Amino acid sequence: MREISSLDNPKIKLYKKLSESKRCRAENALFTLEGERLIADAAAENAGLRSVFITKTYSQKHGGKLSLPAETETFLIPDGLGRKISSTENAQGIFAVCRMLDKPPVSDIIKNGGRYVLLYDLRDPGNLGTIIRTADAVGMDGVFLCGCCDLYSPKTVRSTMGSLFRANVYETPFEEVFPLFEERGVPSYAAVADRDAASLADSDLSRGGAVLIGNEGNGLPGEISEMCDERITIKMRGNVNSLNAAAAAGIIMWELSKAKGEP
Amino acid sequence: MREISSLDNPKIKLYKKLSESKRCRAENALFTLEGERLIADAAAENAGLRSVFITKTYSQKHGGKLSLPAETETFLIPDGLGRKISSTENAQGIFAVCRMLDKPPVSDIIKNGGRYVLLYDLRDPGNLGTIIRTADAVGMDGVFLCGCCDLYSPKTVRSTMGSLFRANVYETPFEEVFPLFEERGVPSYAAVADRDAASLADSDLSRGGAVLIGNEGNGLPGEISEMCDERITIKMRGNVNSLNAAAAAGIIMWELSKAKGEP
Repeated sequence: MREISSLDNPKIKLYKKLSESKRCRAENALFTLEGERLIADAAAENAGLRSVFITKTYSQKHGGKLSLPAETETFLIPDGLGRKISSTENAQGIFAVCRMLDKPPVSDIIKNGGRYVLLYDLRDPGNLGTIIRTADAVGMDGVFLCGCCDLYSPKTVRSTMGSLFRANVYETPFEEVFPLFEERGVPSYAAVADRDAASLADSDLSRGGAVLIGNEGNGLPGEISEMCDERITIKMRGNVNSLNAAAAAGIIMWELSKAKGEP
Repeated sequence: MREISSLDNPKIKLYKKLSESKRCRAENALFTLEGERLIADAAAENAGLRSVFITKTYSQKHGGKLSLPAETETFLIPDGLGRKISSTENAQGIFAVCRMLDKPPVSDIIKNGGRYVLLYDLRDPGNLGTIIRTADAVGMDGVFLCGCCDLYSPKTVRSTMGSLFRANVYETPFEEVFPLFEERGVPSYAAVADRDAASLADSDLSRGGAVLIGNEGNGLPGEISEMCDERITIKMRGNVNSLNAAAAAGIIMWELSKAKGEP
């Protein structure tokens, strides 16, 4: 394993820039991973690990445990350098640069009977990551991010807990994905906080469908929810106005998944 | 409205200390609120607002809109001071000191047929707040925090979005609450990530019950889940190991709520 000791090393500089800048990620089609579990998940799913950086302490403690693809280059770095490039408070001491993921085209993914979630203008990386994680767990067939915060930011990536590598997740314009739902006979459901909408508890979701979830503060714009086949709501008690976006998305995806008798 | 201009003013010093220190909150039985919506919720629920601090800009823009209880003392502060005491990046310019909430005793809350959530060793304030928010929305009868992070930290309070004032939330030792479930005929369900546990989708929750949710990293300790009447799980796809604690809690509370045909 080669050693790197300086923050000025080009590979370390690239790592830092990738973890800080969305633009740098987009230009290079690369992003960063931090932590053993995420990197092990990436390796298990053949997710294109390009470089892995391991601190000396990590190497001594766990160095032999991790199995990486042959094409991944690995580097040993001092513990202090690890702390400098970490974006968490308690760095484990393992970092990676990974290629952005290849996914089948959106038009191959959307099929009659499928189950999808479309996130519109979500701003919180934690919510985004949590929804991807739940979507993966309950077996959604695709997750579409339309005008959301960056899928590849360290916080979003961390919140997905590896589901990023398993779920079919797309950053895609609304105009390119929504018409495919109608074209392929996939019912679309706008999740709204509106007592007049159909109650989720009474909805028949057995044909599958796509659920649309809106911005944390404002929900879905009216013109978007009106384009959907149905407006559905999680009935709430008296003074409660809305649910956390990830909690609401989780409950609706669960119902979609259960209605199909999977996973 | 009186004016305060210095960071050394005792009321401002108390505000800052309360927002930073769990110990200070516990000793004074006070906590802090920031933002218009939270403070309006506290006022609407008669939650014991003691002092409110408003920046000059906030006062000019929205001063007349907020209706506060007569016993609440209000202070005008410079915008710069508002930025200094804020714990968010985009401060709205309104802050409050609030008394910790009076709730009926735990033993009055736990009843046959009721629905409860018990959180064991949860560490993430965002998860804690989100679960309280969902519990309030779907009409849970009580939320019990056993060895969790602080209910009254600014981040938890913010994540509850006002549900803190409406839901019956208790910080209470496990030993004091759990035996009441059995005593009152409330079935207890341990939420576990274990393929051998009963599937939530097949469980009959129509008698109500208490769901136990464990730590984000480790789940419930074995000795706790074994004390429960049943171990239930959200069936997950292939390689997925677990769900986010707030997402899992949301789905199970939703099922409990739906099984009783409420809210």
